[in-house]
Amino acid sequence: MDKDQCAIGVDLGGTKVKVALVDGTGKILRKSRMATRTENGPDALVQEITRAVCDLRQEESVGPAGVGVGVAGQIATNGETVRLAPNLDWHDVELKDRLEQVLDLPVALVNDVRAATWGEWLFGAGRGCDDLICLFVGTGIGGGVVSGGRMLNGSSNTAGELGHMTVDLHGPPCNCENRGCLEALAGGWAIARRAREAVAADPRTGAPLKKLAADQGESITAELVARAAHAGDPLAGRIVAETAEALIAGTVGLVNAFNPQRLIFGGGVIEGLPELVERIDQGVRGRALKAACENLELLPAELHNDAGVVGAAALAMRCDEKKGADS
Amino acid sequence: MDKDQCAIGVDLGGTKVKVALVDGTGKILRKSRMATRTENGPDALVQEITRAVCDLRQEESVGPAGVGVGVAGQIATNGETVRLAPNLDWHDVELKDRLEQVLDLPVALVNDVRAATWGEWLFGAGRGCDDLICLFVGTGIGGGVVSGGRMLNGSSNTAGELGHMTVDLHGPPCNCENRGCLEALAGGWAIARRAREAVAADPRTGAPLKKLAADQGESITAELVARAAHAGDPLAGRIVAETAEALIAGTVGLVNAFNPQRLIFGGGVIEGLPELVERIDQGVRGRALKAACENLELLPAELHNDAGVVGAAALAMRCDEKKGADS
Repeated sequence: MDKDQCAIGVDLGGTKVKVALVDGTGKILRKSRMATRTENGPDALVQEITRAVCDLRQEESVGPAGVGVGVAGQIATNGETVRLAPNLDWHDVELKDRLEQVLDLPVALVNDVRAATWGEWLFGAGRGCDDLICLFVGTGIGGGVVSGGRMLNGSSNTAGELGHMTVDLHGPPCNCENRGCLEALAGGWAIARRAREAVAADPRTGAPLKKLAADQGESITAELVARAAHAGDPLAGRIVAETAEALIAGTVGLVNAFNPQRLIFGGGVIEGLPELVERIDQGVRGRALKAACENLELLPAELHNDAGVVGAAALAMRCDEKKGADS
Repeated sequence: MDKDQCAIGVDLGGTKVKVALVDGTGKILRKSRMATRTENGPDALVQEITRAVCDLRQEESVGPAGVGVGVAGQIATNGETVRLAPNLDWHDVELKDRLEQVLDLPVALVNDVRAATWGEWLFGAGRGCDDLICLFVGTGIGGGVVSGGRMLNGSSNTAGELGHMTVDLHGPPCNCENRGCLEALAGGWAIARRAREAVAADPRTGAPLKKLAADQGESITAELVARAAHAGDPLAGRIVAETAEALIAGTVGLVNAFNPQRLIFGGGVIEGLPELVERIDQGVRGRALKAACENLELLPAELHNDAGVVGAAALAMRCDEKKGADS
């Protein structure tokens, strides 16, 4: 990618919209963010995004090559329509066409987690690597897979739902229709649920965690569990250990199935418990097939919250390059 | 591939070596098989393979384009060396070079399960499909993944070890270092183990199965469990139901992670219990993410025991074509 090139990346999530102007080295030149307002329907939200993109463009002398939008939802295989985005309450919104018409720039749509994977791959912990997996462990768990130098899309463009691999077939129900998914054991919501259940089951051991939550005027969240574990709370420590076990089990499966060179861990749970990466590393090396671990590195993500906008912008630059190459 | 083209496929397994002359439509023109004799070392076995290949060649007027060899072991990333084949007791055998020297034909090496996936993809249940997974459930469980029209190899050429995805993190130990692998619950050896344990734990309910084994002069095997289940034995029926549950859990993970269009089931356990495919299909549709199931078809493999030789031969033809295109 050309260093002097730039593109705009949009990270369209259920609570926030982030917009950034990104150069060809993955550096953010300028950015803005706003709350996601879904209450007035898709048209109003598209208008707000358009305005934010235009604001960024006006402030720069170099014109962006295009706009990449990472959406917390399912993108149609043709890359033109947001088929379903539950947090935005969107169904079949033809976002690409709408944005292209008003912005007069090529627009690339991608799932938000896959956008973040693009970001880590091209400009983060995955630089220069042809076989990698990003696993983002936040409230939910999602991921992206690059194999043989190509991002896997799958047959209906939903590949990479790594949080919904079964790791405990007798395990607790997930938010999806399955049970014992990796997310149902190690996602932020599941950590919080397990902690609340543990406190209810053993009020004495759970008292410090309950008090910590009350003192801070919050309920028991994954973040609180992480802080309590770091402060030496035994119950929180146990929950974190169980979370690590689930992540090891899931990661072993990923390593054996995909044989990546790098496994990159990001997301809020990892940010709150960065020691998990080392712990998973040790566990995986003892349990995954030796031949699959030969070149394996486990690494924390590098771009943190910016992976999505950077990856979306990078995708827009690549699409533009590709178009140039095709014509 | 050219219909008039042909190539030789070799399926080099721990107990049998199969050799076949295959035409460009995947049809076997002629084949032979022999026991795998490992006791005299790699040189002797390579000589036997060479002889079998030469015999097939002599009987045909059309010269084969090349030889593909599917090996029950790990092939080096460069495709030239068998790094480790435990059942053959081979370590770092430079098979490609050795065979090319004596045969004077291009030779392609591939893992045996991946060869079978090539076979199903090009000439079996995967014909015309760009996104598919083959899951071979035999004594062990292995697979191959085609995504976006390309076979996944992974960073050290071991991608597709789908039997070693964790599906029950509290489950029984596997033959690998992990526990609760799909193979440790649904592979032939695991079915036999569970059945023997169930018979020991409940001799009364287990009596018919034990008697059936004794009558036939064999121990309790997965095949025997399948036959007993079909004959209405309740204990065998329970073991089969548990096997189906494990396969559903593993398949849900595969569907969510890879989003294939076709999932193709083969191997001895499926051949013995063909109704499993329908059962897994029903289970998966209720539990995998809806968006990932949109285009999904679950199918039995079509090439049965020939998938390996056909796939290996196909790979040899493709390599030859590719070379032609490159030069």
